[in-house]
Amino acid sequence: MGEPVRIIGAYLSPYVRKVLVCLHLKGIDYEIDPIVPFMGDERFSQLSPLRRIPVLIDDRVTLSDSSVICQYIEDRYPQPALFPSDIVDRARARWLEEFADTRMGEVFIWRLFNEVAIKPFVWGQATDAAVLNKTLTDDIPHVLDYLESQLPAEGFLFGNVGIADIGIATFFRNAAFARFTVDPARWPRTAAFVGRVLSIPAFERLKPFEDKLIRTPPSQHRAALAALGAPLTQDTVGTDTPRRGLMQI
Amino acid sequence: MGEPVRIIGAYLSPYVRKVLVCLHLKGIDYEIDPIVPFMGDERFSQLSPLRRIPVLIDDRVTLSDSSVICQYIEDRYPQPALFPSDIVDRARARWLEEFADTRMGEVFIWRLFNEVAIKPFVWGQATDAAVLNKTLTDDIPHVLDYLESQLPAEGFLFGNVGIADIGIATFFRNAAFARFTVDPARWPRTAAFVGRVLSIPAFERLKPFEDKLIRTPPSQHRAALAALGAPLTQDTVGTDTPRRGLMQI
Repeated sequence: MGEPVRIIGAYLSPYVRKVLVCLHLKGIDYEIDPIVPFMGDERFSQLSPLRRIPVLIDDRVTLSDSSVICQYIEDRYPQPALFPSDIVDRARARWLEEFADTRMGEVFIWRLFNEVAIKPFVWGQATDAAVLNKTLTDDIPHVLDYLESQLPAEGFLFGNVGIADIGIATFFRNAAFARFTVDPARWPRTAAFVGRVLSIPAFERLKPFEDKLIRTPPSQHRAALAALGAPLTQDTVGTDTPRRGLMQI
Repeated sequence: MGEPVRIIGAYLSPYVRKVLVCLHLKGIDYEIDPIVPFMGDERFSQLSPLRRIPVLIDDRVTLSDSSVICQYIEDRYPQPALFPSDIVDRARARWLEEFADTRMGEVFIWRLFNEVAIKPFVWGQATDAAVLNKTLTDDIPHVLDYLESQLPAEGFLFGNVGIADIGIATFFRNAAFARFTVDPARWPRTAAFVGRVLSIPAFERLKPFEDKLIRTPPSQHRAALAALGAPLTQDTVGTDTPRRGLMQI
């Protein structure tokens, strides 16, 4: 396999986490350059034209967009399969991953996590209480109602754990950072499903890094991760100066 | 194959056009329920949880999201292949389709086409001259600079015409509706590429419908399309009352 896979992107990103969990499940070694997406230099702009994380770099290709990366990982390393073999199940898995990436991304990241974490800690701005309230009372329940209609009472969506389970569950780690947990009385399937998926070892092994970083300023992320033994790259495309990316709010 | 494939979605949508072109290239018959995305009823909300078009319905599955639909069409009807067989080329094709869907969608649809067409004709609102000006002088050139670095001098991106060519070119039909064309002196590869892709028969056969609809109020779309012999469904999930969808601006 030659050089290890290199991932650029923050452990706290749900999209980066999705890719790392897929790599864990496939047994693929990687190094990580744990940059905050707002804090990439000009090389990062070249590698990721939309200034999005994660970026995957290996001996053959440089890719951004977590869905494209996960599909590439599946194509290059087919076992164990993370996409269903049945054509209809595969389409449904892709749809659920897309629903998570766009709608759950909008609600859990750009509204909830942004209001309680990114705005105050990255940009030094106050939380907008009206946005936060609408998110908690309207947008999140709407998403959870839909998930409750789709998720299985037991096990995973399509047999073994796969891309749709991972793509949905990853957002609930960020929700937890914002102190949101699913009410098991109102959404019992979703609450149990999230618990099952997040407790697989491929998610669990990321928790020590995440739990440390959520309490650490971005400028100290590398040092904190090194102390925990994270598989860091030698060099970085990160800077200390936040800038707004094209696709960021 | 049983029932024909059913597509819900407007001929003027770049995402619907992408799916229809794929169906044409695969030689798959379809019927279309040509609703404007803002004008779907409650059944539409059930079929498309994000109230997005297109929706594909066949004898096996109901799907939304154009990328998910195109991949399903490829999986179910593999010939002629619209995704590259090489793993790296396939990943790059998916990335370019994703770039088009998100960044070109944002710039060409939600800024350019929205300002000059959707706002005045659907919502009865004035065009925002400042947004339009920034779109034309800043956002669009940035997108075109990137495409110019990626597109081939001749032919298509990965051999025969495929998903990445289609996914990029479809946005330039909408750009043309907004009277924008690519300056061939500044972006020669892009201008020539767009001309090549849009002139394949799979795009050309949609032009009469599009050219008619761009001059027709939404309430008269069905009648206008029937007069042109479009393959319309009998029933519709459309209504006459626009409402804002979750994912719409």
